[in-house]
Amino acid sequence: MISPAETTGTETTNHDESRTPLPASTRVYVQGKLHPEVQVPMREIALADTKSHNGTIEKNEPVRVYDCSGPWGDPEFKGTSDQGLPALRREWILKRGDVEAYDGRAVQPQDNGYLTEKHAEFASKSEKANKFIEFPGLTAERRQPLRGTGKPVTQKYYADQGIITPEMEFIAIRENMRRTEISDQKDDILRNRLDKQHAGSSQQPDSPYTPNIFQRFPQRIPKEITPEFVRSEVAAGRAIIPLNVNHPECEPMVIGRNFLVKINANIGNSAVASSIEEEVEKMRWATKWGADNVMDLSTGKNIHVTREWILRNSPVPIGTVPIYQALEKVNGKAEDLTWEIYRDTLIEQAEQGVDYFTIHAGVLLRFVPMTASRMTGIVSRGGSIMAKWCLSHHKENFLYTHWDEICDICAAYDVSFSIGDGLRPGSVADANDKAQFGELEVQGELTTRAWAKGCQVMNEGPGHVPMHMIEENMAKQLEWCHEAPFYTLGPLTTDIAPGYDHITSGIGAAMIGWYGCAMLCYVTPKEHLGLPNKDDVKVGVITYKLAAHAADLAKGHPGAQYRDNAISKSRFEFRWEDQFNLGLDPITAREFHDETLPQDGAKTAHFCSMCGPHFCSMKISEDVRQYAAAQGLTEDEAVEKGMEEKSKEFAEAGSEVYVKA
Amino acid sequence: MISPAETTGTETTNHDESRTPLPASTRVYVQGKLHPEVQVPMREIALADTKSHNGTIEKNEPVRVYDCSGPWGDPEFKGTSDQGLPALRREWILKRGDVEAYDGRAVQPQDNGYLTEKHAEFASKSEKANKFIEFPGLTAERRQPLRGTGKPVTQKYYADQGIITPEMEFIAIRENMRRTEISDQKDDILRNRLDKQHAGSSQQPDSPYTPNIFQRFPQRIPKEITPEFVRSEVAAGRAIIPLNVNHPECEPMVIGRNFLVKINANIGNSAVASSIEEEVEKMRWATKWGADNVMDLSTGKNIHVTREWILRNSPVPIGTVPIYQALEKVNGKAEDLTWEIYRDTLIEQAEQGVDYFTIHAGVLLRFVPMTASRMTGIVSRGGSIMAKWCLSHHKENFLYTHWDEICDICAAYDVSFSIGDGLRPGSVADANDKAQFGELEVQGELTTRAWAKGCQVMNEGPGHVPMHMIEENMAKQLEWCHEAPFYTLGPLTTDIAPGYDHITSGIGAAMIGWYGCAMLCYVTPKEHLGLPNKDDVKVGVITYKLAAHAADLAKGHPGAQYRDNAISKSRFEFRWEDQFNLGLDPITAREFHDETLPQDGAKTAHFCSMCGPHFCSMKISEDVRQYAAAQGLTEDEAVEKGMEEKSKEFAEAGSEVYVKA
Repeated sequence: MISPAETTGTETTNHDESRTPLPASTRVYVQGKLHPEVQVPMREIALADTKSHNGTIEKNEPVRVYDCSGPWGDPEFKGTSDQGLPALRREWILKRGDVEAYDGRAVQPQDNGYLTEKHAEFASKSEKANKFIEFPGLTAERRQPLRGTGKPVTQKYYADQGIITPEMEFIAIRENMRRTEISDQKDDILRNRLDKQHAGSSQQPDSPYTPNIFQRFPQRIPKEITPEFVRSEVAAGRAIIPLNVNHPECEPMVIGRNFLVKINANIGNSAVASSIEEEVEKMRWATKWGADNVMDLSTGKNIHVTREWILRNSPVPIGTVPIYQALEKVNGKAEDLTWEIYRDTLIEQAEQGVDYFTIHAGVLLRFVPMTASRMTGIVSRGGSIMAKWCLSHHKENFLYTHWDEICDICAAYDVSFSIGDGLRPGSVADANDKAQFGELEVQGELTTRAWAKGCQVMNEGPGHVPMHMIEENMAKQLEWCHEAPFYTLGPLTTDIAPGYDHITSGIGAAMIGWYGCAMLCYVTPKEHLGLPNKDDVKVGVITYKLAAHAADLAKGHPGAQYRDNAISKSRFEFRWEDQFNLGLDPITAREFHDETLPQDGAKTAHFCSMCGPHFCSMKISEDVRQYAAAQGLTEDEAVEKGMEEKSKEFAEAGSEVYVKA
Repeated sequence: MISPAETTGTETTNHDESRTPLPASTRVYVQGKLHPEVQVPMREIALADTKSHNGTIEKNEPVRVYDCSGPWGDPEFKGTSDQGLPALRREWILKRGDVEAYDGRAVQPQDNGYLTEKHAEFASKSEKANKFIEFPGLTAERRQPLRGTGKPVTQKYYADQGIITPEMEFIAIRENMRRTEISDQKDDILRNRLDKQHAGSSQQPDSPYTPNIFQRFPQRIPKEITPEFVRSEVAAGRAIIPLNVNHPECEPMVIGRNFLVKINANIGNSAVASSIEEEVEKMRWATKWGADNVMDLSTGKNIHVTREWILRNSPVPIGTVPIYQALEKVNGKAEDLTWEIYRDTLIEQAEQGVDYFTIHAGVLLRFVPMTASRMTGIVSRGGSIMAKWCLSHHKENFLYTHWDEICDICAAYDVSFSIGDGLRPGSVADANDKAQFGELEVQGELTTRAWAKGCQVMNEGPGHVPMHMIEENMAKQLEWCHEAPFYTLGPLTTDIAPGYDHITSGIGAAMIGWYGCAMLCYVTPKEHLGLPNKDDVKVGVITYKLAAHAADLAKGHPGAQYRDNAISKSRFEFRWEDQFNLGLDPITAREFHDETLPQDGAKTAHFCSMCGPHFCSMKISEDVRQYAAAQGLTEDEAVEKGMEEKSKEFAEAGSEVYVKA
């Protein structure tokens, strides 16, 4: 009935687009101190000089930004996706001496299912046909998975022992926007202006404008993110570092509410569309634009080999929902699922290197009937599979009854938990209902039990929630799940805008990020309508990146405002190129500008098409600044004192002022 | 140096696009009771039947939605933009017996300035050249403007006298989503489910999750919006009805925080782009997608005639910033502005029918130096013009010193005030600073003085404000401006996403709408980069429509959730066409769906491309509902009771349940 989407064919020509460097950007590395082998990649954006009105030229320092693109974002890196990325962390892992290499589970035919017609056709025509059977870059080393030899090999276990791992230092450098390292000009007035940042809600919990949740569950964001702080947050369970020992290609990152808000991009083929190469490129494309995590939600065929390709090429943690593959193994019949098939799938994916598993262990039998009266029933795929299994067998969810065994598996590979919210609301009407909150309480119980096994845990959340009901979600999660990180899909704040649900959900995402949500799962414009293509992935990532950043500003993450300040300064000074380049999407910003003013000269023009040359308020404002300065205050004094005193004089003198003696 | 944008030429072929009806929609009218001549237009969206699992067919009632498109949205209306719209309110105005027709101010050559090169070229080739000199539909009646003969002719003045005008009843019908009128089946279970709505923050001011501002400044949203309620809110100054007596084509609407949140779309040509016909079509296009108000911000030439075209064709209130035209009259030199030129411009525009004026009377001389130390100085065009004037003359802002005279003019035509925020922050760094809040306090003083003259007033607000600083803006405005309606631009919650500022601002807009902002001025994707084209206008309007709706849900506007419920029900039942048609943008939703599943059969398929046929969670969920029903509860009982008791049984019985006796 359904044929592969026609659009997928046209995209195959463009599989290296993600590797084109962003304009004016270079890759730099910051070395670790505790662990000198740590090299943290950042993107550095070069800026033009400021030409001030008196003719002097002032240098603008480059701006460093968090970079998720891994080696693919380094023009020096010459590898290909056939080979996969270098195993950055392998030595760090082996040095700890707590893992063994072993002959892993053999890949079974049903792990991949059959080839789709489209793939079969492609394979028959292509010399690279075997790509779709096995990932070509599988070295002997990679064929042998690692696992713990006894104690947990999780970052949480190390943190509990007081150990600061290289991963933790990597993260501290990454998180800590210490702008002082960039410049030695400590008393530079302009620097001070750029470093200026509003106190966030975390710094003023008692303000009447700070939401209640900051008093009940304070955010403890320090002025500087140190490696020890990372360790302490992971030990407390308030943060996780999703890093499977079998995904050594991955660069360390942290998910926790006292750190930068992170975002996740979902990719994955389904039975009706997409190809492996397309999914690999979507993953790289998502990380280029800022995805901190990627979930492979493939539900079609070739699941195992698609995931292998993605993992071997991914610089960010990869999450999955193992029940999707387990269901493929039983030909889509939920009632045929067994613990043995599921367990086997967990091992399969843990050996491949999946960094976190979404597991819907909180969908208890007694909650299922509560969904019958809902507007939209159960909308989580995992949740509905488990609900169907429970009803079919008249038994409790086997993920719940086998939770301790699942924890043991995850502890042996350091697979983090993302405890699923299978009963999340799929409509505004169903928000915050008994089914949803019943499951959330169980998520809390599962969290405690996983911690006892040394595992790292985050909790998934909704969904569709109107704005005024979002804070309650965050507060209940913090309370019931003991401040484990929260990871939400949106939430979407209305149901009425299909085609724009990246925006309806971006609103909710920014708000819940402010309240304390640690990671935001993106929603693309295609939500509810179809499978996202590359453009949709980009729009989804940029939308969530800006939502996460809005949350960082509101929380008061140290240094978060620096980039805003830099772009605002460039805007005020009509440095158009810098304004484009400092933005989240320089390509689109430039295209939009060029639609009205395509001439190169316009890039240095002191106006834009909104107002035209006569009417530019920025220009008039610059005149005001000059005029004010000419009244006897140097610009530096004006900057320092805000001319407050002068201002008071005016107030006292009435309307006749500025008359020189 | 700058030539007209090339894109504008291609758009001239498409000037009737806005008149194509939306799918499955018909125009209906609801008649007034107090004033039987009142006919309120609504759009009614027809829905498909639900085919339930037991084979029965259930009718879904059509959904009525608020419609801003005026006669242009009525397929029966055959008028053209050359003729302008019928004078809907003329009789209502004349009946009150308090206005006189008079020979208005003669149009001066400088009112239009010279023709742009593009227009001149067009005029020389076209038979319609005179269009660009004078609006062709100017009847003798329209040539004579109306004005008050003594007392104010404002809706506020009538409200103060206890009079319920036809305009007020029109608004009550429009605002009041009384779904009960649509159906007689009061005890229909399904109806009850559709009518279900969460209590909003206004209904639970003491909840720990309700922002502080609801306790300090309660929102008084009744269960039903009556004409008397509209009157009382206008009398209290908490709401305005912007309706110039010389804009009889306009359909009444209300702006106030105890009503639906409204949105404004800015259009207007600038010196570098756009044409008159394009601007008229942009206005209709904006109202088609839901713009409640339109501001004509033209700054180029042909200002007078462009505005005439827009007013004669606009079913929504039109706002302007008169200082823009005044500045054109003095060739762009702010220091040459005089009270006389400005006053003349006010009369000119009041006679044409402008419904509200943005006036930057709060930009006092003493605040100007405070902006010198800002990151981005003064970014409001009006604010920077007045700042420059103040500095040049060393005098107080003439808009402030002549405020009482301005009020007298506005009272004679019922032009509402939108008191400008000339010192609004143009960057996150400058948010909530002394200059901004200094001006806001003065806005409060100006508000009180305007009320004393019988005028209607709203206040403009920022701008760029991080999320955690938004509530303070709303609270200070309510306090200092005595609960007059607030009207904000966004606010933008970060500076780092040029090209996506409809989204960065949509986040802030939804939040401030929830807190009590009455109207949200849209931001398009082109913000900071260029002049919006038609696509940008549409994206801006839809983004703000969804933000306003998110705010309505959060506030708890009666009936706001009905449309969400209807679309969610259609989503759950895989009524794809209904899902598209109930959305804010049916065209885009359908296109997105068709990208992956273009076949017609897919429109009735019980799955979508996200999951594919085997994996649809909605489908599984339907199975769950059926299964649960099969356990002895009818679907109706399940719906009514939520199967709570059954659920408790499960909890008590442990894992072995559902075993039939």
